[in-house]
Amino acid sequence: MASDTPGPLRRLKHLLFGEPIPTARAHHERLGIATGLPVFASDNLSSSAYANESILSVLVLYSATLAGLQLWLALSIALLIGIVAWSYKQTIFAYPGGGGSYIVASDTLGETPGLIAGAALMIDYVLTVSVSVAAGVAALVSAFPSLHELLVPISVVCIAVIAFGNLRGVRESGALFSMPTYGFLVAMLLLLVFGVVKAIGTPIGAQTILAEPGAIGSEASFPLIFIILRSFAAGCTALTGIEAVSNGVPAFRPPEARNASRTLIIMAAILTVLFLGLGYITQHLPQIELYATKNPEYSTLVSQIASWTFGAASVGFYFVQFATAAILILAANTSFMDFPRLSSLLARDGYLPRPLARQGDRLVFQNGIIVLAIASAILVWAYHGELDQLLPLYAVGVFMAFTLSQAGMVAHWRKLKERGHGLSITINAIGTVITGAVTLVLLVTKFSEGAWIIAVLTAAFFFTFRAIKRRYASINAQLAEGMRSATQLQRHSVLLLVPRIHRGVLRAMDYAAGLHGEEVRALHVAINPKAVPALKADWDRHSPDIPLIVVESPFRSLIDPVLAYVDEMLEAHPDVTVTVIVPEAVPTKWYHRFLQENLAFQLKFALGGRKNVVVTNVRYFLD
Amino acid sequence: MASDTPGPLRRLKHLLFGEPIPTARAHHERLGIATGLPVFASDNLSSSAYANESILSVLVLYSATLAGLQLWLALSIALLIGIVAWSYKQTIFAYPGGGGSYIVASDTLGETPGLIAGAALMIDYVLTVSVSVAAGVAALVSAFPSLHELLVPISVVCIAVIAFGNLRGVRESGALFSMPTYGFLVAMLLLLVFGVVKAIGTPIGAQTILAEPGAIGSEASFPLIFIILRSFAAGCTALTGIEAVSNGVPAFRPPEARNASRTLIIMAAILTVLFLGLGYITQHLPQIELYATKNPEYSTLVSQIASWTFGAASVGFYFVQFATAAILILAANTSFMDFPRLSSLLARDGYLPRPLARQGDRLVFQNGIIVLAIASAILVWAYHGELDQLLPLYAVGVFMAFTLSQAGMVAHWRKLKERGHGLSITINAIGTVITGAVTLVLLVTKFSEGAWIIAVLTAAFFFTFRAIKRRYASINAQLAEGMRSATQLQRHSVLLLVPRIHRGVLRAMDYAAGLHGEEVRALHVAINPKAVPALKADWDRHSPDIPLIVVESPFRSLIDPVLAYVDEMLEAHPDVTVTVIVPEAVPTKWYHRFLQENLAFQLKFALGGRKNVVVTNVRYFLD
Repeated sequence: MASDTPGPLRRLKHLLFGEPIPTARAHHERLGIATGLPVFASDNLSSSAYANESILSVLVLYSATLAGLQLWLALSIALLIGIVAWSYKQTIFAYPGGGGSYIVASDTLGETPGLIAGAALMIDYVLTVSVSVAAGVAALVSAFPSLHELLVPISVVCIAVIAFGNLRGVRESGALFSMPTYGFLVAMLLLLVFGVVKAIGTPIGAQTILAEPGAIGSEASFPLIFIILRSFAAGCTALTGIEAVSNGVPAFRPPEARNASRTLIIMAAILTVLFLGLGYITQHLPQIELYATKNPEYSTLVSQIASWTFGAASVGFYFVQFATAAILILAANTSFMDFPRLSSLLARDGYLPRPLARQGDRLVFQNGIIVLAIASAILVWAYHGELDQLLPLYAVGVFMAFTLSQAGMVAHWRKLKERGHGLSITINAIGTVITGAVTLVLLVTKFSEGAWIIAVLTAAFFFTFRAIKRRYASINAQLAEGMRSATQLQRHSVLLLVPRIHRGVLRAMDYAAGLHGEEVRALHVAINPKAVPALKADWDRHSPDIPLIVVESPFRSLIDPVLAYVDEMLEAHPDVTVTVIVPEAVPTKWYHRFLQENLAFQLKFALGGRKNVVVTNVRYFLD
Repeated sequence: MASDTPGPLRRLKHLLFGEPIPTARAHHERLGIATGLPVFASDNLSSSAYANESILSVLVLYSATLAGLQLWLALSIALLIGIVAWSYKQTIFAYPGGGGSYIVASDTLGETPGLIAGAALMIDYVLTVSVSVAAGVAALVSAFPSLHELLVPISVVCIAVIAFGNLRGVRESGALFSMPTYGFLVAMLLLLVFGVVKAIGTPIGAQTILAEPGAIGSEASFPLIFIILRSFAAGCTALTGIEAVSNGVPAFRPPEARNASRTLIIMAAILTVLFLGLGYITQHLPQIELYATKNPEYSTLVSQIASWTFGAASVGFYFVQFATAAILILAANTSFMDFPRLSSLLARDGYLPRPLARQGDRLVFQNGIIVLAIASAILVWAYHGELDQLLPLYAVGVFMAFTLSQAGMVAHWRKLKERGHGLSITINAIGTVITGAVTLVLLVTKFSEGAWIIAVLTAAFFFTFRAIKRRYASINAQLAEGMRSATQLQRHSVLLLVPRIHRGVLRAMDYAAGLHGEEVRALHVAINPKAVPALKADWDRHSPDIPLIVVESPFRSLIDPVLAYVDEMLEAHPDVTVTVIVPEAVPTKWYHRFLQENLAFQLKFALGGRKNVVVTNVRYFLD
C-alpha cells in the first residue's frame, strides 16, 4: 500500500474519489464498446438534436420555398459523416496510441499544423462544456421558470458533478453517465419510429413556416449557391464530436483499435439515422417555427417534432424533452474524456506545463480535468449562462481540426508509399477538401459574428505553446550546461539561529554540529540588549564548542540582521554554501500556530534570492 | 541600515508607513502635552456630547418634572470625574511604566482581577472603535441622506485610515488627528460662551419636553431612588475614556509621569467644563426633544443646543455638528493608542500570543493595531453600522475596569504602609465604592438589554487568557526538560531525491555529499519503469560514489514511495536523523512556477509529522 497509516485528508480523498488504482491494473479500468459509446458519443449524438434546425434556419433566409432542400442537404451531410468517420477509422488504426488531430497533424504535417489543431481542439472542448451544459440546463429550467435565475449556479454544479465523476476514473464515469445517453437513444428511436409512421401516413401538404418578422426571405438577394453553402456548413454542426473516439483510443480495452473503431462506426450509424430520420419527419410537419433569438417560450425543432408525434404535453413529449436536455449536459462528458488526454499529450511534448501530463492515482489526468472544469465554469459565469451566440462558433475550431487531421492522413498514406492505399487516399483527400471548404465558409460567414474570437484564441494558444516549449528548452539547456562526472565536495558553513535557549534549540544545535561544516556558528538577534549577558552565559554552559554571535537589531526586525550577517558570510567566502538552520516548533493543534512567530517561512522567503544559501528547518515537537 | 538593497516590497512599505525608526530614537517619537491631549482625550471628550442627554432620557421616564434634577446629577457626576481623575493621577505616578487597570489590578489584587480588568478593557476598546466610528459617520451622513447606504463602507474606510495613521507611528498619528480634536474644542467653547450668555439672559420659564409617545412617565411606578440611580449611572458615560492617559504613560516624552498627569488633569477639567456648561444651557432650552430610537430626522441634544444658540442651519450650528461627528470618529484613535499597548502587556506576560508584543519598525505594536482594526470593522459590518444599542452597554466594561483599578490603588497604598497616604486611600476608597455601585447599577439595569454579552465576553476572554498562559507554560516546561550541557553529535543519514539528472541535481548531490552523513543515498521514484536503465547509467557516470536507489510507484504518486522509504530508514535506525534533500528549481518569473511541480512543499507537508526528519531544499537558479 501507498502508506500504512493514511491521514484523515487522505482517507477523505479516497472516500470521495475512490481507492488508488495501481498502474498494473490499468487495463481493468478501460472501456468496452457498450460503456465507451455513451462516453464518447454523447457530444456527437447531441448534435443530431439541432443540426436540421440549423440547415432550415439558413435556407428560409432566402425563401420559405427552399425548405424542401433541407432533406437533400441532410443527405449530403450524411455522406460527409460517412467520409469523416471512415477517415477517423483509418486514423484509429494508424495511431492506436490515441490519434487526435494534434498527433496526426504534427506527425505528418509538422509542428505548426499540429499545434494549430491542438489549440483549436482545446478551445473547442472548453466551449463544448460551457455551451452544452448551459443549453441543457436552460432546457431543463424552461420547464420550471422559477428556477431561471439559478441557471448559472445549476450549470456550475453540473460541471462540478461531471468533473467529479471523471476524477473518480474513466470506468466509473462511463458507468455513471451511460444512463442518460441510452435514455436519449431510446427516446429518439421511439420518436423516429412513431414519427416516421405518422409521417408516412400524412400526405405532404402545404407547410407553414413561421419565423421572426422579416427573417424569411431577408437574404433573397444573395446568390442561391451562397445560401446553400452556408446552410450546408450550418448543418455540419452534426459532425461535432465525431473525432472524440479517435482521440481516446487508449481508453478502450484491448484490442483498443478494434473496439474504438467499432464504437466510432456504431456512433456514426446512429448519428446518421437520427439526423436523417428527424430530417424526414421535419418535411412532414404541417407547421415549423424557427426563431433565431432564444427565449423560454421558444421550442426547438425536436420538441416541435415530439409535440406533433406524441401530442403536446404528452408523456412521450416530456420524455424527449428531458432526454434531450440530459444529453446536452452530458455532451460535456466527452470533452472531459478528451481535453485532459490532449493536454497531457501537449504537456508530454513540452507545449503545456508538465503537471498536466501527470496521471493521478485514479489513472486520470486530474489536473486537466480540473483546468477544464474551472475554465468552462468561468465561461458560463461570465456569459450569465447565455452562450447561444457561441454555439455556432465553435464549429469553426472543430472543422479546422478535421481538415488538418484529414490532410495529415493524406500525408500519412503518401509517406507509407505502400500499395493498396489508393481508396484511403482518395477518401481522405475528399474529406480534406470538403471539411476545408466548410471551415472556410464558416470562417467567412461567421467571422463578424465572433469566429474571429476563435481565430484569435487559436493564435494565442499557439504562441503560448511555443513559448512554453522554448522555456522548457532553455531550462533543459541550462541544466545540461556544465555537467561534470564526479561529486565535487562543496565547502559549507552552518549558521544556527538562536532565539533563546531551550531543548528544541539544543536539538537543532546537535544537528548543526552533525553537519560537519567548515565552520559552525550560532547567531542571536538581540532586540532587547539587556537580556544578552544572561543568554551568553546560558549558551556557554550548554554549548562551549559553538561560538555564539550576537547582532543588534536597531529596527527591532528579526530578519534583517540575519540577512545582513549571511550576506557578509557570502561575501567573505563566495565559494562557501551557507546552511541557515532555523529551529521551528511544531504546534500540535492548528490554532497553537498563532502563539508562535513563523520566522522560518519569513526567512526562507527573504533569503530566496540568494544563491549558495540553504535554509533548513529543524523541527521540535510539542505535546 | 537594515538591508543594503531594499526590495520593491520593502520600499513600498517604507513609502506607506515611513522609514524604520531605530530603538535609540524612541524618545523622539514621544508625545508632549499638546500632542498627547488630542490622542488620549478624544474618546473622553466626545462623551460630553451625549452624557447630559443620557441623564435626561432616564429622568423623564419617571416624570417630565424630574428634568430639573439633571443639573444636580451632572454636578455629582462632575465630582466623580474629579475623584476618578485624581485616582488615575496617583496611578500614573505609582505606575509610570503604563498603569492601566490591568497592571494596577494584577499587581495589587492578583491575577484574576487583573485579567478581568484587561478583558473588560480590550472588549471596551473594540466597542469604542466600532460604536464611535459608526455614530460619527452616521452623524456626517445624516447631512447627505443619499450616502446612507454607504454607511458601512465609509465606516470601514475611517477605521482603516485611523489604523493606517497609527501604523505610521505615535507621533505622526498624534499630529494627524489633533486637528479635529482641537476643532471640536473650539466649537464647543464657542457654543458654551454664546449659549451660557444667551441662557443667562433667558429667564427659566416653562420647558416643553417631547419624547416618543408614552415614554414620559412610563416608569412612574418605580421608586424614585431607583430612577435617580439609573439616571446617575447613565450619565456616568461621561467618564468613559478617562483611563486612557494612565494606560499610555510611556507614550509621553520624559518626564513621562508629569506630562501624562498634566494631560489627564487638563482633559478632566475640559470635560467638566463642557459637561456642566452644556448641562446648564440644557436647563434653559424652551423645548427639549428626546428620542430613544435613532433615525436620520432625530437631532441630538447638543445639536438642539447649537440650534437654539446659533439658530437652525446657521454656520455655527453646522460647525458644531461637523466637529461633533469628527470627534466621535476620532474617539476611536484613543483605542488605537491603548488597545495595542494593553494587548502587548498581556502578550508579554504570556496571556496573549507573543506576536502582539512585537514592536514594529515604526515603534508601534503593529499586530495589535491590525487586530483592533479588523475586529472593529467586522463588528460594524455585522451590525450594518447600527450600533446604537451597543452604545450604553460598554460603560459596564469601563466601570468594571475603573472599580478594579481604584480598588487596586487602595491595596497599593495599604501595601506601602507609609504615612501621609491617608487622603489618597480615602479618595480611592470613595472612588471604589461609587464606581463599583455604578457598575452594579449598569449591570442590573442593562442586563437584559445586552450587558450580559459584556459579562459573557469578559469571561470568555478571561478563560482564553488563562488557556494561552497554560499553553506557554507547558511549552516552556517541555523545552526546559532534558536540557543538558554539551553538544551531542547526532547520527544522520542523507537522502537525495533525484527526479532526473541535470546540473541542479548535481549541485544538490555535491551539497548532500558535503553534509558528511553516515550514509548518503540517492532515491529515484520510477513512474515510468522504461526510463530507469538510462537514468541508472547516467547516474553511475556522474556519481559513482553515491548509490542510487530506485523505487517503483504503483499508484504513480511521487510522494508516497518517498514516505515509505523514509519510514523504513527511520525504523531501521531510530536514533538516526534523516535529511531529505529536495532539489528545487527557482523560477525567474512567478508564472514560470506553473511549469514545475512543487514537490518540495508537498513533501515537507507530508513529512511534517515525522520526528527525526529534516527536509532541506537545495535550490538551483534558472535564467
